Amino acid sequence: MTGSSQAIEISKVDGSQVSSTTDSVAVEEPLEIQLTSRSAGGSAAKSVSITMRTPGDDHDLALGFLFTEGIIQSADQVVSIGHYGEADPLSGLKNIVRIEIDPNVDLQLDRLQRHFYTTSSCGVCGKASLDALRVTGQNSLAAHKNVFPTRTLIDMPSRVRKQQPLFSKTGGLHAAAVFGSDGEIVIVKEDVGRHNATDKVIGSLFSAARLPAHDLALLVSGRASFELMQKALVAGIPLLAAVGAPSSLAVETAKEFDMTLIGFLRDGTFNIYAGHERVGHGAF
Amino acid sequence: MTGSSQAIEISKVDGSQVSSTTDSVAVEEPLEIQLTSRSAGGSAAKSVSITMRTPGDDHDLALGFLFTEGIIQSADQVVSIGHYGEADPLSGLKNIVRIEIDPNVDLQLDRLQRHFYTTSSCGVCGKASLDALRVTGQNSLAAHKNVFPTRTLIDMPSRVRKQQPLFSKTGGLHAAAVFGSDGEIVIVKEDVGRHNATDKVIGSLFSAARLPAHDLALLVSGRASFELMQKALVAGIPLLAAVGAPSSLAVETAKEFDMTLIGFLRDGTFNIYAGHERVGHGAF
Repeated sequence: MTGSSQAIEISKVDGSQVSSTTDSVAVEEPLEIQLTSRSAGGSAAKSVSITMRTPGDDHDLALGFLFTEGIIQSADQVVSIGHYGEADPLSGLKNIVRIEIDPNVDLQLDRLQRHFYTTSSCGVCGKASLDALRVTGQNSLAAHKNVFPTRTLIDMPSRVRKQQPLFSKTGGLHAAAVFGSDGEIVIVKEDVGRHNATDKVIGSLFSAARLPAHDLALLVSGRASFELMQKALVAGIPLLAAVGAPSSLAVETAKEFDMTLIGFLRDGTFNIYAGHERVGHGAF
Repeated sequence: MTGSSQAIEISKVDGSQVSSTTDSVAVEEPLEIQLTSRSAGGSAAKSVSITMRTPGDDHDLALGFLFTEGIIQSADQVVSIGHYGEADPLSGLKNIVRIEIDPNVDLQLDRLQRHFYTTSSCGVCGKASLDALRVTGQNSLAAHKNVFPTRTLIDMPSRVRKQQPLFSKTGGLHAAAVFGSDGEIVIVKEDVGRHNATDKVIGSLFSAARLPAHDLALLVSGRASFELMQKALVAGIPLLAAVGAPSSLAVETAKEFDMTLIGFLRDGTFNIYAGHERVGHGAF
């Protein structure tokens, strides 16, 4: 086992032919994210999340999660970050990331409850989910108008695929990537979950003090959900392109916050569900 | 908007050609699952989950979630189930399902914390995740040896696709289906999330007192993760087939509990990652 993929013996079936071979699968292991703060009186660590992830870029994953959940806002709030605990006897990996937060930061851990979206007008509903984003300080990205050429968008999935070593090895891993309007790919990350891959990308931008990333676009494999739009919004990224289909609430989020949402970006075509002004249809 | 899909105006880009058209997207709305019990002294409802789901089969989704999480074990523990609260002003949908549980049932809501998998030997690790399943009473499925012919497995994805009206309309929805060794499809459900689609299938089996389903196999679109293997295990389903790749922990779960795990089931081929004795390689 390496950190991120594992070789196993399998049977391959092709019609009536059966053969034995070795295959690589993506590693899935739990990661616990713990927070500590000296203001909390001692070293007690609070567990804020356990996610099933592919090991690698654990620090970025933890920071991206905390940032997109609204728990931390800037890198100077982080005193230290490191792996912690016993190593997994099988993989040799430590599966806890512990982050010490500056004691002057008011940790609003109740924000982790923000999925409990309710308003007095409709109770639990999609509209309340959008309202909750406004309440946590998210605003329109209308002012950020970088234009991404059609050619750049169409070429991006295959270019990102070339930077996915784990996908090449295992045949099945999600990816997230950010790129500029000139087509330059800034970061590519992989994970068994596309939410984790997105958190790894945003966490990497966070560590580099590169947020908000008003000049970049985010590409994700799979479908565009509300949660992925939310992560792009919190990171200030005005364009999200998905290889798969968008959901209704992803479209509504894009419209509400003046973002661009592209879906079905594959095989030389794509659909624009919101914010067409950021897509350049110039000379092809 | 219907309940499960929504028509919106989009721009379709094909190379340098741009056209306006109408597209259907899958609806994504929050669903809150609430529990009540008369033994709890009055009508106070406890929220146990909010998930983003595609409306439809909400009762099955709620029951499948509660069953696979170990909160309830049989249909006679459910006194009543119904939608509740204000309707979403946009969709007209109610997004709360409230379930009254028999007052004699000992609700072990701390099981919802079971994702916090730790053991004294390795702390947070994959092995601990498997141990946690044993602690909640899950045992080997080795005794359940129905054989599923290669031909049945290979044909299943396209046959299930034909029973996915929402996928046909929106081009992007996950599906889960259970079928017998004779190839008969028992249930197909769709959702923006494949965990939800799986919960809908298992909840439907639960309502029909059809669990454990030792004679059935489960097909899921997308990848096979630990959580999906866990849901199949709790439902007593010994074979899980995924259109996409499995993760390392999905493979380990299958081996630990003597289940069959098939991956990359597409284009006339598949891989067997564990439990090949349930795959029949007879006359093709």
